[in-house]
Amino acid sequence: MEDTLSALRSLMLSHSPPLDALVVPSEDYHQSEYVSARDKRREFVSGFTGSAGLALITKNEALLWTDGRYFLQAEQELSAQWKLMRIGEDPAVDIWMADNLPKEASIGVDPWCISIDTAQRWERAFAEKQQKLVQTTKNLVDEVWTNRPLAEINAVIVHPLKFAGRSVADKLKDLRKKLAQEQARGIIFTALDEVAWLYNIRGSDVAYCPVVHAFAIVTSNSAFIYVDKRKVSVEVQAHLLENGIEIREYTAVSSDVTLLATDELDTISTAKVETEARKITSKTDKIVNGQHQAEGNSNDLIWADPGSCCYALYAKLNLDTVLLQQSPLALAKALKNSVELDGLKKAHVRDGAAVVQYLVWLDEKMQDIYGASGYFLEKDSVKKEKHLQSLKLTEVTVSDHLEGFRASKEHFRGLSFPTISSVGSNAAIIHYSPKDEACAELDPDKIYLFDSGAQYLDGTTDITRTVHFGKPSTHEKACYTAVLKGHIALGNARFPNGTNGHALDILARIPLWKDGLDYRHGTGHGIGSYLNVHEGPHLISFRPQARNVPLQSSMTVTDEPGYYEDGKFGIRLENVLIVKEADTKFNFGDKGYLSFEHITWAPYQTKLIDLNLLSPNEIDWLNSYHSTCRDILAPYMNEVENAWLKKATEPVGA
Amino acid sequence: MEDTLSALRSLMLSHSPPLDALVVPSEDYHQSEYVSARDKRREFVSGFTGSAGLALITKNEALLWTDGRYFLQAEQELSAQWKLMRIGEDPAVDIWMADNLPKEASIGVDPWCISIDTAQRWERAFAEKQQKLVQTTKNLVDEVWTNRPLAEINAVIVHPLKFAGRSVADKLKDLRKKLAQEQARGIIFTALDEVAWLYNIRGSDVAYCPVVHAFAIVTSNSAFIYVDKRKVSVEVQAHLLENGIEIREYTAVSSDVTLLATDELDTISTAKVETEARKITSKTDKIVNGQHQAEGNSNDLIWADPGSCCYALYAKLNLDTVLLQQSPLALAKALKNSVELDGLKKAHVRDGAAVVQYLVWLDEKMQDIYGASGYFLEKDSVKKEKHLQSLKLTEVTVSDHLEGFRASKEHFRGLSFPTISSVGSNAAIIHYSPKDEACAELDPDKIYLFDSGAQYLDGTTDITRTVHFGKPSTHEKACYTAVLKGHIALGNARFPNGTNGHALDILARIPLWKDGLDYRHGTGHGIGSYLNVHEGPHLISFRPQARNVPLQSSMTVTDEPGYYEDGKFGIRLENVLIVKEADTKFNFGDKGYLSFEHITWAPYQTKLIDLNLLSPNEIDWLNSYHSTCRDILAPYMNEVENAWLKKATEPVGA
Repeated sequence: MEDTLSALRSLMLSHSPPLDALVVPSEDYHQSEYVSARDKRREFVSGFTGSAGLALITKNEALLWTDGRYFLQAEQELSAQWKLMRIGEDPAVDIWMADNLPKEASIGVDPWCISIDTAQRWERAFAEKQQKLVQTTKNLVDEVWTNRPLAEINAVIVHPLKFAGRSVADKLKDLRKKLAQEQARGIIFTALDEVAWLYNIRGSDVAYCPVVHAFAIVTSNSAFIYVDKRKVSVEVQAHLLENGIEIREYTAVSSDVTLLATDELDTISTAKVETEARKITSKTDKIVNGQHQAEGNSNDLIWADPGSCCYALYAKLNLDTVLLQQSPLALAKALKNSVELDGLKKAHVRDGAAVVQYLVWLDEKMQDIYGASGYFLEKDSVKKEKHLQSLKLTEVTVSDHLEGFRASKEHFRGLSFPTISSVGSNAAIIHYSPKDEACAELDPDKIYLFDSGAQYLDGTTDITRTVHFGKPSTHEKACYTAVLKGHIALGNARFPNGTNGHALDILARIPLWKDGLDYRHGTGHGIGSYLNVHEGPHLISFRPQARNVPLQSSMTVTDEPGYYEDGKFGIRLENVLIVKEADTKFNFGDKGYLSFEHITWAPYQTKLIDLNLLSPNEIDWLNSYHSTCRDILAPYMNEVENAWLKKATEPVGA
Repeated sequence: MEDTLSALRSLMLSHSPPLDALVVPSEDYHQSEYVSARDKRREFVSGFTGSAGLALITKNEALLWTDGRYFLQAEQELSAQWKLMRIGEDPAVDIWMADNLPKEASIGVDPWCISIDTAQRWERAFAEKQQKLVQTTKNLVDEVWTNRPLAEINAVIVHPLKFAGRSVADKLKDLRKKLAQEQARGIIFTALDEVAWLYNIRGSDVAYCPVVHAFAIVTSNSAFIYVDKRKVSVEVQAHLLENGIEIREYTAVSSDVTLLATDELDTISTAKVETEARKITSKTDKIVNGQHQAEGNSNDLIWADPGSCCYALYAKLNLDTVLLQQSPLALAKALKNSVELDGLKKAHVRDGAAVVQYLVWLDEKMQDIYGASGYFLEKDSVKKEKHLQSLKLTEVTVSDHLEGFRASKEHFRGLSFPTISSVGSNAAIIHYSPKDEACAELDPDKIYLFDSGAQYLDGTTDITRTVHFGKPSTHEKACYTAVLKGHIALGNARFPNGTNGHALDILARIPLWKDGLDYRHGTGHGIGSYLNVHEGPHLISFRPQARNVPLQSSMTVTDEPGYYEDGKFGIRLENVLIVKEADTKFNFGDKGYLSFEHITWAPYQTKLIDLNLLSPNEIDWLNSYHSTCRDILAPYMNEVENAWLKKATEPVGA
C-alpha cells in the first residue's frame, strides 16, 4: 500500500497542473453506494473496505473520512500511513482541505466519480484561498492499479411486467410530462437503479444490486441507453426498441451529452417511436411558468440531478440552460405500485421463513456443538468441550447457511448486501462484514446480531435480529428492550401527510435516551423492488435532510434502531415497513394521516426482553405481531420448524 | 377604516417614488411582539388585533397575513375590504408581492419597522421582476393616524441584583469577550428585552413586557443607552453611570450608528470607565481566526442581529464590515443563572396558588349561579334559572378575578400577556382575547380554557388549564386525554445535548396524531425572568428553525400542546419547564443528557381524563405531579382552598 501511495504521489507531481492533493471517492461513475470490484478504488488505495468513505492523499498525508457506522472497522483496517477522520467529529473533508491545503492548491479528482453537488460545495469552500478543483483527465488510481479486475460482461435481463407493475411506455409517458412541466427538453440519468427502473431491465454488474452499468438520456421524443452492447441479448434489444429506446455504447454518453447540449441528439436517434410528447409539450407550454434556474426559450432546459449526476457530464452542458433538480425518478421509484407492493410482501414472507429456519438450525447447532442452553432457555452453557474443528461455527459459516435457506426460496437471485453476521464485540461494529480468514467463532455466552437481506425477483428484503443462545446479562436485556421499544414506537406512529422522516426519527431514540443510550446511525431507509437495498429519496434520520421529501403512502422504509457498546456487544432490530393511509378516527386539517404496515416477519427473542419495561400496549403489539408471524410463515416451514416458531411466538405478559 | 385606506393610497401616490404597495408590519422599531398603543399601526389600519400579522395595501387590494393561531380571530375582525392570507396555506407575503405586483413596482415600508433578515429576503424575491423595496422617509400610517396615542413617559427602574443574579459589569465583560472573539469593535442592540437584560433595568413602556423603549450600543470600551431622558431618574442614572453606560436621547441612535460605522463613537463617550476590554482584545487577537462575513482589519466589524435589528440602522453601516449574526445576548439571556432559576420557581409557586384559588372561586360560582355540578362532579347542570345580571360571569369578569388573585401575591407587577379566558367555541380561537363589550358568558355545559401569566419581580409566568364544570362529552375527554398524553410525553423526555426543540415537538403530537388530531401552533417557547413571556432563541416547534439553537441546561421552555375544534371547543395544557442535566444511568457518546423539570403547579382536571387511555407510567407521573402540587401550594392557601386542592389532586388509577 505504501507503494501505491508513492506511485500516486509521483503521478500527482507529474500531472498538469501538479496536484497538491488527490481525492479518491468511494463512488463509481454512477455515484453508486455498492460498486463493482474494479470500481473499488478507494478500497484499493486505503485498504478500508466499508461501503462509505472518501480518501484524500496529499503530499505528506493520507486521510480517510467515514461515518459512525464504520469508525471501529476503519480503525482496524487502516494502516499506520492513514489517518481516520470521523464524520461528525472531525472537520468535513471540504473544510479540512480548505483549511489545511496551501493557498492556490490544486486538488485533483476524477470528474466521473464526483457529483455536481459535491464538486460545487467543494469549489465554494476552496474559493477563499483560491484553491482549485482540478478534473483529472485520467483516473490516477486506475493508472497505478496493475491488477485491477477486468470489466465483466454480464447479461442484461428484462424485468417483466408481472414484477415491475408498470410498463416502460407508461413510465416514459409520466417522465415526459414531468419534463414538459419543468420546460426541459432532455434529462440525463446516471444512477444505475434509475436506469434499471425506468427501462424495466436488471443485471448483475454490481454485487448485491441487480443493476446494469448504464446511463440513460430521455428527451421529449427520444430515449437512449448507454451500455456495453455485448451485454444486450436479442430479447433485451427487442424490449428496448419496442419502447423507442436507442441502444448506444456506454462510452458514447460523453459525446452524446455534448450533442444534447446543442440540441442535436434527437437527430441521431433511429429508434424513436411517435410519442405524445410533442403534443404534451405544446399543450403545457401555456400553463407552466417560473421556477426556472435559467432564463431561456421554453422547453430549452436540460435536467440533471445534482446529487447523482457526475461532474464530468455536467461540465459538457450549457450551464445557462441546466435544470439542477432532484431526478423525477427518485420519487416515482419510491412510490411503489400495487404489483410491487404485493411482490414485496410476498418476498418478505419467504424471506422471514428463511430467517426462522436459520434460527431453528442455529439454535440446534449452538446446543449440540457449544452446550448452549439455546434460544429459549436462559442458562450458562454447559462446559465448552473441545469440539471438532470441522464442526466449528464461525460468523461466515453460519451466514452461508442463512444464505442457503434464502437460496431455497422461490425467485431468489442473491443477497441484497453483505450479510452482517457478528458475535459479541463484532456486533458493535455497525456495518461489520466478517471475512472468511479472520472472523469470530459463535459463542453461547455472547450476543449474536445478523443483518441481512436478499434479492428476489418480486422484491428486495432487509432484516435484522439480535439473539442470545445462553444467558444474557440484565444490562443486555435492558438495552435490547429499549431498542425494541423504539422500534415499536416508530412502527406504530401515525402522522399527517407532509411529515418528514427526520421528524419521526426521535420516536425510535426516546426509550434509549431515557437511559442515556443512543446509536450513531439513521433509523430508516427506503428499499427497492428487486433493486437497491438502500433507496431514497426519503429517509428516517436524526440529520435534517437537504431535500425535504416527506413520507408518502406506498413508500417502503426500514425501522432499525440499535445500541452498540464498543468492544462488548451490539443490538439492532430491523423490519421493513410500508407507508399507508391511516384509518384515523378524525382528519384534522384535512391533511390525511399515514401509518406503517410491517411486512417483515420473524420473531423477537422474548428471552432478551425485560417485560417489566414494556407498557401494556407494547406487549399487545408484540403478541399480535408474533401471532401473525406464526400464521403467515407456517406454509413455508416443516413441522419441527413450525413447532419452534410456535414456542418462539408464545404470548408474553399476563 | 375605508377612509384610512383611501388616505394611505393618496400618500402612496404622492410619495417619491410613488408606491405600488405599502407594507405595514405589526412590529415597532424594536421588532417587538407586543407593542405600545401608539405602535399598533397594523391594528389601526386593518382592525385586526392579534399580536402577529402583516398588512399589505396595494392600489386595489388590502391583505392581511397571519398565522394559524389567529385565522378565526382575523376572520371575525377584518372588514370586507380586507382579504385574509393564511400563513402556511396561502403564498408567503414576499412570494405574493413578487408574483402579483407589477414589474419594477415600488413597495414601501418604514425601514425602522422591518428587520434586516426580512428586508433582504424580500429584496431577493423582488429581484426577478426588478421590483424595489422603498424605504419611506416617514411612516405613512402615522401621517394618517390623527388620534394616535401620545408617547408615555414611564419611569425606568433598576432591576436589583437579588433578582437579576448577575451584575451589569459581569454581563458587559462577557459581552466584550464575545465581541473580541468575533473581531467586532461594536454591537447594536435593538431588541427591548436585550437592552433591559444587559443593563439590569426594567420599565413599563409596553403592556405586559416590563421593558423600556431604548436602543443600546456597546463597543470594546464604551456603552450607550438611547432612551427618552425624562424616564431616567437620578437613581437609574447613577446605576447606569457606575457601569460606564452613557445615556443618550432615543433619537440619537440614528446619528450614533453613523459615528459607530466610522469608528468615531467612542470619542463622544464621557461615561466610559476603564474596562479590561482593550486587554482582552489584544490578547484574543492572536488566537481568533476566520468565520468572518467580511475581510478587514481585526476587530473592525460591527455586529447586528439580522433578526431583530431594523433595516434603517443597518443601512447606516459600512456593509463590508457588518457582522450579521444572532445577538450574543439571545442565548446569554436564555441561560438563566441560579438566582433567576430560584426566582422563577418561587414565582411559579405563588402563581400556581393564584390559579388554584381562582379555580376554587370559579367552581363555587359556577355551582351557585349556574347550577353546575361543579369541578368534581360530572352531571348536567340543574336548571339554568334566570339569574341576576349583576351575578353574570363573563370571560372578562372571571379573568379579572384571576388577575385579582395574582395581584395579591408578593412581587406582582402585572400580567405577562392578555389573558385568554374562553368559553366553548371561543376556546377554539387559539389566541382569543375576550373584549369587555362582546364576550361570552360562562357556561356549565361548555369547556372553559384559560391561558394566562403574570410578571413578578422574581420571574414571569405562563400557564394554561382547561376545565369543565358540568358533564364533558366522551369526545371532549378523549381529546383532553390525548393533549395530556402529549404534554406528559414531552415533559418526561430525556435527550442528548445538542438536541433541537424541533426534534422534540413530535412527542407532544404523537398521541393526537394517533386519532388524526393536531394543532396549528408550536409546542413551546422560552420565558423571561421578569421579562418577555415569549423569549428565544430556542423553540419547540414543528417548523425547522432557521437558527439551530439546541435546548441547553438552565433554559426555560413551555410545554403546551392543544386541540381545537372550530366553532366547538378548544383544549390546551401548558406548564413551564426548566431544562436541566438528566441523571441517566449511562452517558453514551459522552454527550451528556438533558431532561425537564416542571415548575408550574396547578392540577389537571381528572374528570376530563379518560384513564383507560393513560399508560401506568402516565398515571404514576400524574399522581406524583398532583402530590407535589398539593404540598408545594399549601402554604399559600386557606383551609377551604387546601381542602379543594386535596380533592383535586387525589391519586387516580388503581
